[in-house]
Amino acid sequence: MTSTGTTAPIPDPEIDPKAEALAEDLAARLAKGDRRALARGITLIESTRADHRRAAAALVRRLHAAPRDAVRLGLSGTPGVGKSTFIESFGVRLADQGRKIAVLAVDPSSSRNGGSILGDKTRMEHLSRHPNAFIRPSPSGATLGGVARRTREAILLCEAAGFDLVIVETVGVGQSETMVADMTDIFLLLLAPAGGDELQGVKRGIMEICDMIVVNKADGDLKATAQRTRADYAGALHLLRKRGQDPEGFPKAIAVSALEEDGLEKAWEEILTLDAFRRENGIRDHKRRQQAVTWFRAEVEERLLRRFRRTPEVAAIWPALEQSVGEGDTAPQIAAAQALAAFGLTGDET
Amino acid sequence: MTSTGTTAPIPDPEIDPKAEALAEDLAARLAKGDRRALARGITLIESTRADHRRAAAALVRRLHAAPRDAVRLGLSGTPGVGKSTFIESFGVRLADQGRKIAVLAVDPSSSRNGGSILGDKTRMEHLSRHPNAFIRPSPSGATLGGVARRTREAILLCEAAGFDLVIVETVGVGQSETMVADMTDIFLLLLAPAGGDELQGVKRGIMEICDMIVVNKADGDLKATAQRTRADYAGALHLLRKRGQDPEGFPKAIAVSALEEDGLEKAWEEILTLDAFRRENGIRDHKRRQQAVTWFRAEVEERLLRRFRRTPEVAAIWPALEQSVGEGDTAPQIAAAQALAAFGLTGDET
Repeated sequence: MTSTGTTAPIPDPEIDPKAEALAEDLAARLAKGDRRALARGITLIESTRADHRRAAAALVRRLHAAPRDAVRLGLSGTPGVGKSTFIESFGVRLADQGRKIAVLAVDPSSSRNGGSILGDKTRMEHLSRHPNAFIRPSPSGATLGGVARRTREAILLCEAAGFDLVIVETVGVGQSETMVADMTDIFLLLLAPAGGDELQGVKRGIMEICDMIVVNKADGDLKATAQRTRADYAGALHLLRKRGQDPEGFPKAIAVSALEEDGLEKAWEEILTLDAFRRENGIRDHKRRQQAVTWFRAEVEERLLRRFRRTPEVAAIWPALEQSVGEGDTAPQIAAAQALAAFGLTGDET
Repeated sequence: MTSTGTTAPIPDPEIDPKAEALAEDLAARLAKGDRRALARGITLIESTRADHRRAAAALVRRLHAAPRDAVRLGLSGTPGVGKSTFIESFGVRLADQGRKIAVLAVDPSSSRNGGSILGDKTRMEHLSRHPNAFIRPSPSGATLGGVARRTREAILLCEAAGFDLVIVETVGVGQSETMVADMTDIFLLLLAPAGGDELQGVKRGIMEICDMIVVNKADGDLKATAQRTRADYAGALHLLRKRGQDPEGFPKAIAVSALEEDGLEKAWEEILTLDAFRRENGIRDHKRRQQAVTWFRAEVEERLLRRFRRTPEVAAIWPALEQSVGEGDTAPQIAAAQALAAFGLTGDET
């Protein structure tokens, strides 16, 4: 290769006519807001079958040029803060106003357990039956990287199907919050009222990536506590963050009661204010472009590793290598060099 | 390939006579406890030069059969808990007793900044000058995965050089704690005394991986607070953990004063008790074998990605792909497929 980078020819991926036809059909139906096409498209995206993967890739390729004007909202909250109740009340309210709401769940534990215990539709009973809403549970049985790819692609599909708001919610375990923040425009952290100046163990890293803290359960006996908690976090956010780019007052903390549907309209107004500001100033698009590059890199890594592991010569020796390393007979580095050699990559500089 | 896994031939990595000769020499000097050979070996491990990497690989290959009887101790603590003072007092005490102590620092921020602001030798003045001690700052300018590999290999070198205790310390930002726990036998979390029942924002995940919490600064005005903090965490550990494998009372919380050198002997005794128990019951070796498999997988991923990015056909189009994705002209998935095609892997099922 003598090319200098920008002038190098970019090879085209292979084309499968059958996959293209299916993708064409789904894309057309998505453009009309067909929810069954949306569900079918997400199923393709989550599938590991080769023909499904080709069709999913063809579909996502088509959607690159589709409108992408939804607000992508990340939402995190540990169990017990009333996340489902919040999404239900918040979502139904907006859906009643004629907005189309999609909720995509990201549960890293379902990667291990093969699915969450309670179905997402059970958790959000009214929203799941609302004609303007679409709820999709977390893809199961995948690595965190796999969940990321599927969720990113599902967001594209929801946008292509005309949804105005795509909520990506996560339970906030491990890296899932960063992952969700990396694929959304605005990131909300939902908290429960906490007594005194208790810190609820909120990780500093999460405070730094969130755009708004929503203290839920500001009702009944907890109302005053919720307001105090809100004030505490408003102070903490103020101390932690110095972002010249955002409008005055952001990141901010608000208190709501999902149960009494109090403060939900204000939460939505704040989201719209921040979103409008960022759109007008090109911040949203800049952020999305950066996210696309991150996605590109993650996509390359994930595909490369999958192809590697599926290469027959690698797959043939992999169990023996793991066993030999696990029994202490082969050093991990030597086994790694052998695995790479089976893939056709030799030399210690691997 | 028709092989069935265990019967497949395992190819040998290539041999470079010059690298082998250097590795041979270093391995012989390490076996005599030569500290300059240790420093030189770690420098090879941290180098990105191809000949250095070959020599490092040859060295690590040789050390696989070397004695590995050091206690590998992971230690985490956020800035301000007195981590350096603790390691200094604890290390000097043990070194004075004739034990050989190596301290390897893992600072994920140095991956970004190209090195920590204060040198580790300044932080631990007496220990760094002690004839029985060896201190190595965090490798800089590498990814977290790169830091993991280098630190794992540095542990092997320290053990080959006859060190009895290898402390791997980290500031506990992001994933570095899990990484350190994944390469050590025993994991300690160092904390400062906290007023009331304040939680110090200690992440639940860290509580779950640590074998002992050490509350430092149990001296002067803070002595009573430290004892209360210790009791709080002992309770929390008790609630969180149910490990039938460890001896009664573990994981446990103790209070020490690194400044007044109080409780350090007890800390060491607890570490030895746990280590002896785990050795006798095969738990340590089982854990190390599992860690070796994890290391093997990480090693494969890191090498594969490095080889991929360094492949001329990939490197030639990579900047153009990132730019095109960043400008929204190419979908991340399409760009990923193109990058993989440049590596010789085609088809949408990539």
